[in-house]
Amino acid sequence: MKILHTRPRDDGFHMPAEFDRHYGCIMIFPHRRDSWQNGAYAARKAFAEIIGIISRSEKMIVCARYDDYDSARFMLPESVRVLEMESDDSWARDVAPTFVTNGSEIRGIDWGFNAWGGLTDGLYFPWDKDNKMARKLCDSMDIDTYDKRSFILEGGSIHSDGEGTVMTTEACLLSKGRNPEMSRDEIETELKAYLGAEKVLWLPCGIYNDETNEHVDNICAFTSPANVVLAWTDDRNDPQYEMSKRCLDYLENAADAKGRKITVHKLPLPKPVTITAEECAGLDDMNGEPTRTPGERLAASYVNFYISNGHVIVPQFGDDNDKHAIDILSRLFSTRTVTGVYARDILIGGGNIHCITQQIPMADRFRTGG
Amino acid sequence: MKILHTRPRDDGFHMPAEFDRHYGCIMIFPHRRDSWQNGAYAARKAFAEIIGIISRSEKMIVCARYDDYDSARFMLPESVRVLEMESDDSWARDVAPTFVTNGSEIRGIDWGFNAWGGLTDGLYFPWDKDNKMARKLCDSMDIDTYDKRSFILEGGSIHSDGEGTVMTTEACLLSKGRNPEMSRDEIETELKAYLGAEKVLWLPCGIYNDETNEHVDNICAFTSPANVVLAWTDDRNDPQYEMSKRCLDYLENAADAKGRKITVHKLPLPKPVTITAEECAGLDDMNGEPTRTPGERLAASYVNFYISNGHVIVPQFGDDNDKHAIDILSRLFSTRTVTGVYARDILIGGGNIHCITQQIPMADRFRTGG
Repeated sequence: MKILHTRPRDDGFHMPAEFDRHYGCIMIFPHRRDSWQNGAYAARKAFAEIIGIISRSEKMIVCARYDDYDSARFMLPESVRVLEMESDDSWARDVAPTFVTNGSEIRGIDWGFNAWGGLTDGLYFPWDKDNKMARKLCDSMDIDTYDKRSFILEGGSIHSDGEGTVMTTEACLLSKGRNPEMSRDEIETELKAYLGAEKVLWLPCGIYNDETNEHVDNICAFTSPANVVLAWTDDRNDPQYEMSKRCLDYLENAADAKGRKITVHKLPLPKPVTITAEECAGLDDMNGEPTRTPGERLAASYVNFYISNGHVIVPQFGDDNDKHAIDILSRLFSTRTVTGVYARDILIGGGNIHCITQQIPMADRFRTGG
Repeated sequence: MKILHTRPRDDGFHMPAEFDRHYGCIMIFPHRRDSWQNGAYAARKAFAEIIGIISRSEKMIVCARYDDYDSARFMLPESVRVLEMESDDSWARDVAPTFVTNGSEIRGIDWGFNAWGGLTDGLYFPWDKDNKMARKLCDSMDIDTYDKRSFILEGGSIHSDGEGTVMTTEACLLSKGRNPEMSRDEIETELKAYLGAEKVLWLPCGIYNDETNEHVDNICAFTSPANVVLAWTDDRNDPQYEMSKRCLDYLENAADAKGRKITVHKLPLPKPVTITAEECAGLDDMNGEPTRTPGERLAASYVNFYISNGHVIVPQFGDDNDKHAIDILSRLFSTRTVTGVYARDILIGGGNIHCITQQIPMADRFRTGG
């Protein structure tokens, strides 16, 4: 593995769209007892269901700590590669590399990771195991890696349409816990240089009470070039209404890198989901403090889906809108099977299906062997 | 990765010779403070030198514990793949899989490992991390694995000529700490079934004071079909004389699986190598006992070389016979460069260059990609 100090766009590399062809997908076997209730028992079952679906149409690599390797190997299909790797938690979207390609080769970007805000408003300490994973994942696959650890960024805070447009949120990327010394323009310059993009769409915000400082991947996603789904509620008394409305207004007045207007497809939210006292009791404390409070609203959203080669895997919450979300996405992803997975046990951890996955784009090196 | 419960020979698989073409080689970054003096500092330098030579002609995979990953990555060439993996010690020959092939595919054998004798006369406790490595290595490469954990065997106790003949020692394979409930015939049956062999050559013994119960790879090795080198001394007062003589007598009366007589090339031993008080002081204790005693004889032998695609890498001890060993091997390996590496710092750990390496044979899947 070469550690590169150039910039992907200068080398002819860019980040493809998630709906472009994948070689595979990276996930991390959950273990953290203050993130996942009851020793991650229910979360592991939900992760395993998702892994099973993804592995039907792409190569699946699952990182497991030394202590969890045997459990992961036992629970997961034999076609899945289980890779020993220490981690602080299980959010592959945010700690695995962002992969870029020039059409034939593939490279990883090793962003800095500080648990969504470091000592300012991060969610746990320390985060050094997570921060080392991107480079180690590239090493294990013999993929060269751009060193960008000096810039704090999580994969969940960016989307690419693969055609020059990147989408993010101001709430997250301009937060005080990431790169506070950088201006919006300076951050945009880095995104363009590293993701090989010409235009950055800056949504103002994300989902209410989203503890990632409102990652874009919980509120909005590209479904094809110039088409996005936006998490939406018609309930004007819900604080989310104003947030989604601001994003809608922004998008309706925006154009992508190719000058196309963005078509916004509203994806209704489930009714507010709150954590129960029993669920809170199943979570370990963090430094003597409860990690969640009974009644706390969780950042549930159907937008937090993963697009695999064969499927779109969508969180389900036991809500009246579950089926409606699947129907809307089925119309937008006509060549894929849209499949729901009951995801309350992932939501309790603080994210959802998109947050726990990271796609590896297809490249010539994967076409010719293994 | 599939876990297979069939037997390689029944599936058409066999263990190639080490001098057959390799895809690559597995090693483990040393760390154990009661095996390697001064916190493994000198051993790491020697390992890195060997890794550098091997990586010139084959793919190199080096396992490093979580705590050692950064040091390994820093010390090793960028073409080397560093793979996070916990281990008890660093003897890849004995804990990595034995690979078998059918000419196009490759599979691993996951033998049981109990630290060279378990609770009877093993060298450390516990050994569970080592015992899990073979399967995890196969998993990381997406290679199917034969489950043979019920049978205790280390890779250093077997050699294959790739043409139906396997060589081992009675001293090791019939020791009380491995498979004491099995007869010699029963063990031979397993070797043939798993290594795809028709004949087993049973040398009586190995190198004097070799704490592996006298692994074959320290006393004898195939250099081509029907040709072996045998560690030799002419000093009749050395206890090694009688041991080497018994092996010579056995080999001179033996034929291989194809009925060929074995030609024995004597490879002179260095003068007896003993550990110094200063070296002993650099080793951590084990459970309150010194791990080695000043003046203890170490099992030094030039036979403990590794055959890579381009090189034969031979231990050197600062002895008058160092050059002589290289000259003999240069005549026997005319298509490879025979290269010496000063290996006293590996020898102190209890083995040598062959013990810390495990070859991965070439197979179609590696020819087409990676």
